[in-house]
Amino acid sequence: MATTETVLARIGAEFGAHEARWLDFLRIPSISAQPAHAPDCRRAAEFARDALAGIGFAASLRETPGHPVVVAHHPGPGGDVPHLLFYGHYDVQPADPLELWASDPFDPKIVEGPRGPRVVARGAVDDKGQVAMWLGALRAWVDATGGLPVRVTAIIEGEEEVGSVNLEPFLVANKAELQADVAVISDTNMWDIDTPAITTSLRGLVYMQVVLKAASRDLHSGMYGGSALNPINALAKALAALHDAAGHVTLPGFYDGVAEVPAEQAAQWAALGFSEDKFLGDIGLRLPSGEHGRGGLERLWARPTCDINGIWGGYQGPGAKTVIASEAGAKVSFRLVPGQDPEKIIAAFKAFMQAHVPADARLEITGSGGAAFAVPTDSRFVRAARTALADEYGRPAVLIGAGGSIPVVGALHRVLGIDSLLMGFGLEDDQIHSPNEKFEVRCFRHGLRSHARLLGILGGV
Amino acid sequence: MATTETVLARIGAEFGAHEARWLDFLRIPSISAQPAHAPDCRRAAEFARDALAGIGFAASLRETPGHPVVVAHHPGPGGDVPHLLFYGHYDVQPADPLELWASDPFDPKIVEGPRGPRVVARGAVDDKGQVAMWLGALRAWVDATGGLPVRVTAIIEGEEEVGSVNLEPFLVANKAELQADVAVISDTNMWDIDTPAITTSLRGLVYMQVVLKAASRDLHSGMYGGSALNPINALAKALAALHDAAGHVTLPGFYDGVAEVPAEQAAQWAALGFSEDKFLGDIGLRLPSGEHGRGGLERLWARPTCDINGIWGGYQGPGAKTVIASEAGAKVSFRLVPGQDPEKIIAAFKAFMQAHVPADARLEITGSGGAAFAVPTDSRFVRAARTALADEYGRPAVLIGAGGSIPVVGALHRVLGIDSLLMGFGLEDDQIHSPNEKFEVRCFRHGLRSHARLLGILGGV
Repeated sequence: MATTETVLARIGAEFGAHEARWLDFLRIPSISAQPAHAPDCRRAAEFARDALAGIGFAASLRETPGHPVVVAHHPGPGGDVPHLLFYGHYDVQPADPLELWASDPFDPKIVEGPRGPRVVARGAVDDKGQVAMWLGALRAWVDATGGLPVRVTAIIEGEEEVGSVNLEPFLVANKAELQADVAVISDTNMWDIDTPAITTSLRGLVYMQVVLKAASRDLHSGMYGGSALNPINALAKALAALHDAAGHVTLPGFYDGVAEVPAEQAAQWAALGFSEDKFLGDIGLRLPSGEHGRGGLERLWARPTCDINGIWGGYQGPGAKTVIASEAGAKVSFRLVPGQDPEKIIAAFKAFMQAHVPADARLEITGSGGAAFAVPTDSRFVRAARTALADEYGRPAVLIGAGGSIPVVGALHRVLGIDSLLMGFGLEDDQIHSPNEKFEVRCFRHGLRSHARLLGILGGV
Repeated sequence: MATTETVLARIGAEFGAHEARWLDFLRIPSISAQPAHAPDCRRAAEFARDALAGIGFAASLRETPGHPVVVAHHPGPGGDVPHLLFYGHYDVQPADPLELWASDPFDPKIVEGPRGPRVVARGAVDDKGQVAMWLGALRAWVDATGGLPVRVTAIIEGEEEVGSVNLEPFLVANKAELQADVAVISDTNMWDIDTPAITTSLRGLVYMQVVLKAASRDLHSGMYGGSALNPINALAKALAALHDAAGHVTLPGFYDGVAEVPAEQAAQWAALGFSEDKFLGDIGLRLPSGEHGRGGLERLWARPTCDINGIWGGYQGPGAKTVIASEAGAKVSFRLVPGQDPEKIIAAFKAFMQAHVPADARLEITGSGGAAFAVPTDSRFVRAARTALADEYGRPAVLIGAGGSIPVVGALHRVLGIDSLLMGFGLEDDQIHSPNEKFEVRCFRHGLRSHARLLGILGGV
């Protein structure tokens, strides 16, 4: 423990420098979804590579058909120590709507919030902020002790926000090089700001885009209304049919393989004292949506869902334009739970849309998916993490589910045969994927220290 | 007839100048819906005022709460001649999506088409091109004979494309000054390029915007999906419910007062030999939409409709963003037929939307409407127009319905007690309200000459 204490002291002494590196990372607008930002994605990859190289890792950029992957290795002390594979992503979500940001999303600001200072920027927490925590913990060990107490491989990808489409082929192609005992991922939340959490179940994701094409050009609704197919009318009709009146998703076979929550898990969740009234009240809502007859945490963590994430068509400007658009489109996503097959759901969605639009409509449907995943709760890595978190916070960590998908967890299991330890420090109100994304500096500090503790515990020092 | 022949000869000799004035009018981007173009709307009004003043009219701009109205008077020859009220509008629809235009919408081009030269620009036909025709006919009479054979008042408004909201109060306030025997309006179509038409029935229009607000900010769909209200899901569901499976509009009371087409009218329409296959085939479609069990022209001219003219919400960019938007919106319009009350339909739409969204959704619904109208088919003005068109085209004009609304027709009847003569020269494929709006130069020439003939016939010279 003396060594870990030394490292923690070093973190305290150099916390300003850790924070400064985090902010530098945030200044790079590495939006993976937008082709114009491809050079910025590469800059963010280089930033991460240089950070790892600077503390003794053999670090490099690896090309993919999309944005590059950072891979880095540190041998650790040698001998019989665990080999950890840290995973993170340097890419971020688009920042629009820009007009709703209080400050430039890529000019991070430290502002005083109700729980102390916070950093406001796109990527503040997801995932640059969380990556900066474990990069900081690795640096603190190297700076304070001249090395690391465990063997470490790091991979930081640039396409998590667009479905990690090139990651699994990359893992397959570099399988031997990337072998490790466990993956360590910080891309999830705490239970609340005082209660640390380890996430042990994750929903999967199918994300689709559908474009419905009708007439060969925009039409005047006065001249053609009543005769010509209106693609917005037709798209709304098909999308509306995706849910029944009780909030169930109507895709044939959608619930195939979905299990009920085991009684023990349900009891543990019930003990968490989750208030959906407060959860919704914090975002200005009163009434739960989703499947009727299911509990709040059950709908959020254990039930599959369907959300329309975007829709467009026709005239969106001020005033009136009496147009029948030539096409309309939507982005539709499905959150999956263990037991659901993403490929079957993609196929079911395509068939459903085709069956629910007029025969004259031409559909262009694209998308991809990743399955849900559950990780073991009793491994030595989870036990070590529980100890590290309990030491840091002075209270036990809770084991929770998460609604968001992290496709890499499934890929790492399939390709490398390893489980993931999901130890994250975000908060529910961090506004990830929204304007004014933020990360509490307090969470960043505890997260960095918790990672430093975890390294010490696993290294047996 | 000798005098009319003189005027027609003059038109032939000076056709290039008529065309040049038309193109100058088109160069002014007078988009009434977009506040940034308010100064351009005023420039277009000044252009029209100067054109009328230049041929002896007492012409002025009159202020309104919106864009100004041009009013001009010419006494004619004195004595017992008819008094015509020419009406037109100098405002145009927005030009987006700009990327679909082959050339700048406000830099008119004369391009060779399959039926001779055409002018491509926003407003080429609707309504600047048609206004330029009757301005040209008035000018030709003044230039060739020193005056006009009838008394003429002209009003040219700047808010037709945004619902003519200030026009009726303007007519009321200036009722005495604007008295005339009949209104002459060119804002409609021919039957086809060889067959002139007089429009005797017009659908009305209710145009609504609905914005559905849910959470106080955009949310991550992985974290909130299954619990938080998704405004796009909810909006699609409510909009989809506006039509039943047989294409009927489901608003309670929507069809109240809608009469069946009289047998005589139905027979006349049947005789037109309308092919809906060709009508739809020209725009890349095969199957009629709209109410099941109704004929093509009946759906287009005599049945009320509902079209979603625009929809928006969430992420519309490339790639994937797993967001639950805080709000979503749509523009929804209803084409009305005689017997329907726009105010009742506005109220029914508001109640319908409120009843079809979850209780947590907050709705902002705005909009306005104008009733449908039918004009007499046997007045001396319609007879004169039929003669003028038959003389010009060598074949009789047909009396047709039109799907588009021209709210001024109802307002002129209510306030001034006069009917309208709708003699228009547009074609179905002119792409009004769409990219690459055009007007055939051949239509412009015949229209200008037909107006000149009408003036001669009504003046008895």
